[in-house]
Amino acid sequence: LRTGDPEVVYAAGKTTEQVAAIVKHLTSANPNRPILVTRADEAARAAVRAACPDGHLLEDATGRCVALGPLPEIPRGRVAVVCAGTSDLPVAAEATFTARVFGAAVEQITDVGVAGIHRILAARPALDRADAVVVVAGMDGALPSVVGGLTGVPIVAVPTSVGYGAAFGGLAALLTMLNSCAPGIAVVNIDNGFGAGLYGARIARQSGSGTDSGTLGTVTELPR
Amino acid sequence: LRTGDPEVVYAAGKTTEQVAAIVKHLTSANPNRPILVTRADEAARAAVRAACPDGHLLEDATGRCVALGPLPEIPRGRVAVVCAGTSDLPVAAEATFTARVFGAAVEQITDVGVAGIHRILAARPALDRADAVVVVAGMDGALPSVVGGLTGVPIVAVPTSVGYGAAFGGLAALLTMLNSCAPGIAVVNIDNGFGAGLYGARIARQSGSGTDSGTLGTVTELPR
Amino acid sequence: LRTGDPEVVYAAGKTTEQVAAIVKHLTSANPNRPILVTRADEAARAAVRAACPDGHLLEDATGRCVALGPLPEIPRGRVAVVCAGTSDLPVAAEATFTARVFGAAVEQITDVGVAGIHRILAARPALDRADAVVVVAGMDGALPSVVGGLTGVPIVAVPTSVGYGAAFGGLAALLTMLNSCAPGIAVVNIDNGFGAGLYGARIARQSGSGTDSGTLGTVTELPR
Amino acid sequence: LRTGDPEVVYAAGKTTEQVAAIVKHLTSANPNRPILVTRADEAARAAVRAACPDGHLLEDATGRCVALGPLPEIPRGRVAVVCAGTSDLPVAAEATFTARVFGAAVEQITDVGVAGIHRILAARPALDRADAVVVVAGMDGALPSVVGGLTGVPIVAVPTSVGYGAAFGGLAALLTMLNSCAPGIAVVNIDNGFGAGLYGARIARQSGSGTDSGTLGTVTELPR
Amino acid sequence: LRTGDPEVVYAAGKTTEQVAAIVKHLTSANPNRPILVTRADEAARAAVRAACPDGHLLEDATGRCVALGPLPEIPRGRVAVVCAGTSDLPVAAEATFTARVFGAAVEQITDVGVAGIHRILAARPALDRADAVVVVAGMDGALPSVVGGLTGVPIVAVPTSVGYGAAFGGLAALLTMLNSCAPGIAVVNIDNGFGAGLYGARIARQSGSGTDSGTLGTVTELPR
Amino acid sequence: LRTGDPEVVYAAGKTTEQVAAIVKHLTSANPNRPILVTRADEAARAAVRAACPDGHLLEDATGRCVALGPLPEIPRGRVAVVCAGTSDLPVAAEATFTARVFGAAVEQITDVGVAGIHRILAARPALDRADAVVVVAGMDGALPSVVGGLTGVPIVAVPTSVGYGAAFGGLAALLTMLNSCAPGIAVVNIDNGFGAGLYGARIARQSGSGTDSGTLGTVTELPR
Amino acid sequence: LRTGDPEVVYAAGKTTEQVAAIVKHLTSANPNRPILVTRADEAARAAVRAACPDGHLLEDATGRCVALGPLPEIPRGRVAVVCAGTSDLPVAAEATFTARVFGAAVEQITDVGVAGIHRILAARPALDRADAVVVVAGMDGALPSVVGGLTGVPIVAVPTSVGYGAAFGGLAALLTMLNSCAPGIAVVNIDNGFGAGLYGARIARQSGSGTDSGTLGTVTELPR
Amino acid sequence: LRTGDPEVVYAAGKTTEQVAAIVKHLTSANPNRPILVTRADEAARAAVRAACPDGHLLEDATGRCVALGPLPEIPRGRVAVVCAGTSDLPVAAEATFTARVFGAAVEQITDVGVAGIHRILAARPALDRADAVVVVAGMDGALPSVVGGLTGVPIVAVPTSVGYGAAFGGLAALLTMLNSCAPGIAVVNIDNGFGAGLYGARIARQSGSGTDSGTLGTVTELPR
Ligand SMILES: Nc1ncnc2c1ncn2[C@@H]1O[C@H](COP(=O)(O)O)[C@@H](O)[C@H]1O
Ligand SMILES: Nc1ncnc2c1ncn2[C@@H]1O[C@H](COP(=O)(O)O)[C@@H](O)[C@H]1O
Ligand SMILES: Nc1ncnc2c1ncn2[C@@H]1O[C@H](COP(=O)(O)O)[C@@H](O)[C@H]1O
Ligand SMILES: Nc1ncnc2c1ncn2[C@@H]1O[C@H](COP(=O)(O)O)[C@@H](O)[C@H]1O
Ligand SMILES: [Mg+2]
Ligand SMILES: [Mg+2]
Ligand SMILES: [Mg+2]
Ligand SMILES: [Mg+2]
Ligand SMILES: [Mg+2]
Ligand SMILES: [Mg+2]
Ligand SMILES: [Mg+2]
Ligand SMILES: [Mg+2]
Repeated sequence: LRTGDPEVVYAAGKTTEQVAAIVKHLTSANPNRPILVTRADEAARAAVRAACPDGHLLEDATGRCVALGPLPEIPRGRVAVVCAGTSDLPVAAEATFTARVFGAAVEQITDVGVAGIHRILAARPALDRADAVVVVAGMDGALPSVVGGLTGVPIVAVPTSVGYGAAFGGLAALLTMLNSCAPGIAVVNIDNGFGAGLYGARIARQSGSGTDSGTLGTVTELPR
Repeated sequence: LRTGDPEVVYAAGKTTEQVAAIVKHLTSANPNRPILVTRADEAARAAVRAACPDGHLLEDATGRCVALGPLPEIPRGRVAVVCAGTSDLPVAAEATFTARVFGAAVEQITDVGVAGIHRILAARPALDRADAVVVVAGMDGALPSVVGGLTGVPIVAVPTSVGYGAAFGGLAALLTMLNSCAPGIAVVNIDNGFGAGLYGARIARQSGSGTDSGTLGTVTELPR
Repeated sequence: LRTGDPEVVYAAGKTTEQVAAIVKHLTSANPNRPILVTRADEAARAAVRAACPDGHLLEDATGRCVALGPLPEIPRGRVAVVCAGTSDLPVAAEATFTARVFGAAVEQITDVGVAGIHRILAARPALDRADAVVVVAGMDGALPSVVGGLTGVPIVAVPTSVGYGAAFGGLAALLTMLNSCAPGIAVVNIDNGFGAGLYGARIARQSGSGTDSGTLGTVTELPR
Repeated sequence: LRTGDPEVVYAAGKTTEQVAAIVKHLTSANPNRPILVTRADEAARAAVRAACPDGHLLEDATGRCVALGPLPEIPRGRVAVVCAGTSDLPVAAEATFTARVFGAAVEQITDVGVAGIHRILAARPALDRADAVVVVAGMDGALPSVVGGLTGVPIVAVPTSVGYGAAFGGLAALLTMLNSCAPGIAVVNIDNGFGAGLYGARIARQSGSGTDSGTLGTVTELPR
Repeated sequence: LRTGDPEVVYAAGKTTEQVAAIVKHLTSANPNRPILVTRADEAARAAVRAACPDGHLLEDATGRCVALGPLPEIPRGRVAVVCAGTSDLPVAAEATFTARVFGAAVEQITDVGVAGIHRILAARPALDRADAVVVVAGMDGALPSVVGGLTGVPIVAVPTSVGYGAAFGGLAALLTMLNSCAPGIAVVNIDNGFGAGLYGARIARQSGSGTDSGTLGTVTELPR
Repeated sequence: LRTGDPEVVYAAGKTTEQVAAIVKHLTSANPNRPILVTRADEAARAAVRAACPDGHLLEDATGRCVALGPLPEIPRGRVAVVCAGTSDLPVAAEATFTARVFGAAVEQITDVGVAGIHRILAARPALDRADAVVVVAGMDGALPSVVGGLTGVPIVAVPTSVGYGAAFGGLAALLTMLNSCAPGIAVVNIDNGFGAGLYGARIARQSGSGTDSGTLGTVTELPR
Repeated sequence: LRTGDPEVVYAAGKTTEQVAAIVKHLTSANPNRPILVTRADEAARAAVRAACPDGHLLEDATGRCVALGPLPEIPRGRVAVVCAGTSDLPVAAEATFTARVFGAAVEQITDVGVAGIHRILAARPALDRADAVVVVAGMDGALPSVVGGLTGVPIVAVPTSVGYGAAFGGLAALLTMLNSCAPGIAVVNIDNGFGAGLYGARIARQSGSGTDSGTLGTVTELPR
Repeated sequence: LRTGDPEVVYAAGKTTEQVAAIVKHLTSANPNRPILVTRADEAARAAVRAACPDGHLLEDATGRCVALGPLPEIPRGRVAVVCAGTSDLPVAAEATFTARVFGAAVEQITDVGVAGIHRILAARPALDRADAVVVVAGMDGALPSVVGGLTGVPIVAVPTSVGYGAAFGGLAALLTMLNSCAPGIAVVNIDNGFGAGLYGARIARQSGSGTDSGTLGTVTELPR
């Protein structure tokens, strides 16, 4: 990762103690580098909070993420994160949180689904002012194809494991997105909100727009 | 099949001679029953034409179909057949042809794609006056989900083998359709325009609407 | 969904509190619209019951469903729901319940299996008087093919995840149904009793038959 | 193979010359042992015929088989071979031919399909007098499940690669058969008529029935 | 099933109470028909024992089976059940138990593996005196191919879900067995010891050998 | 597509005549819009050349592409296209051509493979001056993971169908790329050089760098 | 296994009592043969410790292995075990432990990943002095391809089930390794550290180098 | 590759002209390095022969390989290549040829199959004197498991695409080999005789045995 990018810890499959130890180690080894912890359950996030009693802390329960250290204060570019609703929210929130921590302003649009086309059409202004659009969708994974018909901005599609039966744990949505009829869509792994958020932020930070879209420093809990 | 339904011959994997022989046999065995031949290439269709020099004949090159005998003259109900474009046309035409031969009036809408949402919206009146909607789509197979958000009429979704790579011969589109976010969608086999047309006609014939939608008897070549 | 169709809540993956809150919100926002809650375990159903102390309530434990509000009182058309036995009953019951709540009279036939052909033959009168037939089957998923040889009514096939080993969680039954030798079969997702019931009811409501098949309003527990 | 069993040559993937050479070598090495050549196209069969100008020869064009040498003359037991129709005939004929060459009397029943249940019911006497039943089916592969409900004799199920789309080259039929609701069914590889015929003959030869079911020696072309 | 065959109850997915109720119902409805309960854990077997205080009872903990009622006393034919060792024992025991309850004498050979070829060679006499051989194998599923080279008796191969990683829950073993280089092998579903035992017994009962191989009536626990 | 983006024609599965007709139609309907034809074999490209006798034409035989009309003259941003060698060149060339036609300056690096790590290290300056990096790889698909460790620029990974056996037509490479250990990678469909080139150009055109990287208008054949 | 090779017990799926009983039996049956127990959790390892109160014992908690009896004292050849980090450590440790117990000196290199190419380059001397290299990798499974470009020593690649989504339980890594661009790589089953360690030791013991690389007898806990 | 290893050209997917050009280029660039061309059909091999009129040339039609330049003259170690017969010969011959060209003495054993266990047992002396054993098998892929029970030498297993139906192009054999019950087996890609031969030679060259096993220089056509 480039200088200034946060150090990232993937907490899944690690004990609470291991997560806390890694965070303490990273903090003391390099106090000037921000740290992002993903896939952290309540216990892991509490341990990170305890390990960092008075530093700046950004946390999101839905996205199961926590960040600490000198996070970016002036956003570089803007990312829109789009999903259909409740079930996809954890992955969308992970993308949102990661994009913010990697320096982008983020606009989250969470009630647009393929089967309710007018709500997507209403979201068009937000799509238009973004430098990158993250679209999160499970089940049929059709949402990126529709968004792809509405904007010329690079779209990062994230299939989720939401669904049952022939959803095959996100495989159906993944294949849909890889075969999208609309151009301008690239895909990350199933449920990989982190990867999509980082990717969106990397596109946004080298784009000109969005630099007046607010600050990130004072947020402690993202709206859901 | 119920009394009056055509006898159906699936010409794929049969020689031209076999197709002609079957058609001749069926014609003489039961002159009052219509015959539908599907997956018939130009040679097979010519053989059927030759086998039936002066009877009523309905043929469609795009859909690779030919029908003969006393076809239904007064449509019972109405089927809309929807697809995105060129590549899916053969399957859509097979569905259209089959639905007509099984007695439905058919309205074909062939230039609507997920990535051009306004064209689907413009097709809404046609969707509204149908008793059943057949939606044909390859690649991402996303079109039925969008149509499903626009109508409460039963939708028959047909995945096609159009696409490459991770389309896996229509598997991607099939899974998309089985996992559609929109309710009111049932799915037939990949490329099975015949099955979808028959299914749409069966729904339509027991529905009240559409009986004034013209006659079928004079058509010899479907518009493309 | 068309005007008058119930609002549907999918309770799987939601907490009891979330389900209760959504139901309360929908009830007060639109008291004249019925609500259907599917995949609701005993706790979720109890919460819905508590949230609706004196309204009309329809509930089915086998199908894990509950409905409330001004449900349809005069059935529009008739759906037959067919399955082989014990293991497929939850999915069949979900289809039955959904079809009723969407306005159809439903006739459930639950002891017919492919390996006992005479029981299916005995069910023929029920198949004949239906406007749509839902067939639920796991393991080999062969039942729809046999039913398809007995009726010209549209069949909605539901594969279930019943079975083990090479059943692959319903994949075997799904493929069987998509490849049925009998025409007139369309397929919904594995275990998707809800989708099949809704689809059957949509076909039935636009068909002429079955309007004298009893009322739905007084039922509180479906017979099993 | 046990003493007396024919030597078997699988001609697929071998040149006509290779097949002829192998047959000549086997004939001169062991003139008292019969030889069965499977998957032999017209050219390969002609080469075998030429290699064996005056010996006893049994050939079947549909099953792409030829046999020569001292074939069994008194059948040991009886095998029924069942399939639905035209497309599955080559595999069924391969099973029939193999079973005969391995010593069984064979009864072929070729026009029974799942979607026409009365024709299967009419075949019951033939099923009852067999020692083993081979059932050949493509597409949904549902036929063995139905036959399994009608007989207590061991059933050998052969999935075929007939079908398209989600038939996946016979995979759908294979899975159906492995998951059959009816007990008493075991399965061989897709299109493996040879394996099923041999297996049926092995069961039949150790069973008591069927020894008066005619002779095999004078047949030169199996009826189709 | 033919007259005299036991009624079979598949206990997986049923509550202890349901299993006991079904067994009581079957016993009183038809006291002269034996009952086999498979996939029955200790609690279910205890409930069956309690439901049948003084009748004849046959039980096997490894195979998770229990049978009751007038079981066959004179074996008809002989089945050999072969497996490599500890992990495959439950499936092998289910096959053994089922074959006995369906009337065959059974010889179980449980320590032969592909990687220790001499132990299989030593088992040859047992293979030779059987009318059918059931071979149970997980992981590579190679054992039936080796046994198939040693005997001309029909082999029923049972893949098991033993293994990890690329064993894919028994899929690897299943494919191996379907593609066996040795002829004379047919396959049942993954872990389906019941189906293999029943199939072996059906072959054995119509074969001449093995009728002097002891009685079955006094066994209460199969040796492991 | 945004105003100014070329119209795109996918020539695969279309006849030479169809391609020529579409190109002529587009040219006369909108002479000011560029046209890109992909997957065009030599005959199709010749037909396009003939249809456009004196206009500006850009063609690449390796990438099977041809473009015509008022192509962008001043590049907006810079895309690096990276691949390992001979077999992946057609897909890489398609990406290169598309990126150019959509307005980016392109730098192609074609002899870097995972197994020769020093050549990738030598390519680092080119990676550093790009706004987006397209990485094309077949077989193991490992190249994007290595490139991802060397740059913080957004990477578009394209799996190719190069390889045999367990490459499964590009599936292996696709899965590798979706699971990359390196962050900052998004993936397009197997062999989809067009999608990757377009995506890279969309990222590049909104980035500040690269605007002095030469002109595109005079190129008629891309260097290989 | 050859004389002198340890007896191996696979503890997964066995009870603690079964593991202890097997170890006791093996110890008394053949006191001069070492025993290796793999996939042994803390309880199983404690039971082995108790079963062997005063013998030589080698144990590794990370690799879930324990060995006892007269282990090799003079290493024959040298194996390098390479992995990227935390998540793959259990499988790497199993390989290390097995290779030691089968007689090889082992050098473990655990912090090299594809995305940090300089750390692999730094490990080159260790690769150069090995007779066999085991490379353990999950997710993209790309590490063996990179190592394969750095050494001409035989590489044993072990895919792990680390990852989520399209990692499909190690399938992605497995396919990557089977399709490696670098020659000199052979692959074992997913998570099969045991098989890789044994394979590496077998190569090493017949190679000339590494015989002065220390002793193994005094180690009781491997460094992590 | 290490100094002295041949340069390798993979001719599949290259034109005859391209192959000849590459060989000429490599010969003149580095006359002291041997060249191996694999997957070369008769035309490609003729072109190589013409490109090298008077040099040392080694060619094998079955293995579709040709080598030229200063090939190794004194074998270092010994590789045994084992397969069952005709269909697997091309892959086995590719392995044999590659192992020779990479410096090993090779002993080819080509008529051993799983179903004829005595022939494998007879091959044991050849297995015992080898430093590495390559086992090539299609269909069930069971042969390596059996060989693995007979030798402690490292085994390289090569699945082939021989077979039909559920062989799935070699997938069945691949999975069998990855799950082998016998230890000491590692696997290369389907049909990758080249990779197996190279791997075997790399093991052999660092082992002590086999250095007196003849010369390689005078061979021009390998025995089949
Ligand atoms: N939610 C996530 N999904 C996928 N990869 C992640 C995620 N969070 C972190 N990572 C990656 O995991 C690496 C850290 O892994 P670790 O060292 O195991 O904590 C980071 O460099 C990221 O590239
Ligand atoms: N295009 C088609 N796709 C799938 N099934 C078809 C098609 N056309 C006909 N069929 C079915 O094939 C049967 C006739 O098959 P056959 O007897 O082989 O000609 C008909 O009864 C139809 O159910
Ligand atoms: N272990 C088993 N595996 C597969 N099928 C079984 C098994 N045991 C019983 N069956 C089948 O399940 C049927 C009884 O199912 P049920 O009515 O649900 O108890 C029997 O007729 C058997 O064909
Ligand atoms: N038969 C083969 N199967 C797999 N890989 C091969 C084969 N022959 C050569 N290779 C590999 O392909 C590379 C050469 O590829 P290329 O530069 O395209 O000729 C060599 O370095 C080998 O690693
Ligand atoms: Mg969606
Ligand atoms: Mg579409
Ligand atoms: Mg069924
Ligand atoms: Mg069938
Ligand atoms: Mg085995
Ligand atoms: Mg690569
Ligand atoms: Mg890795
Ligand atoms: Mg083999």
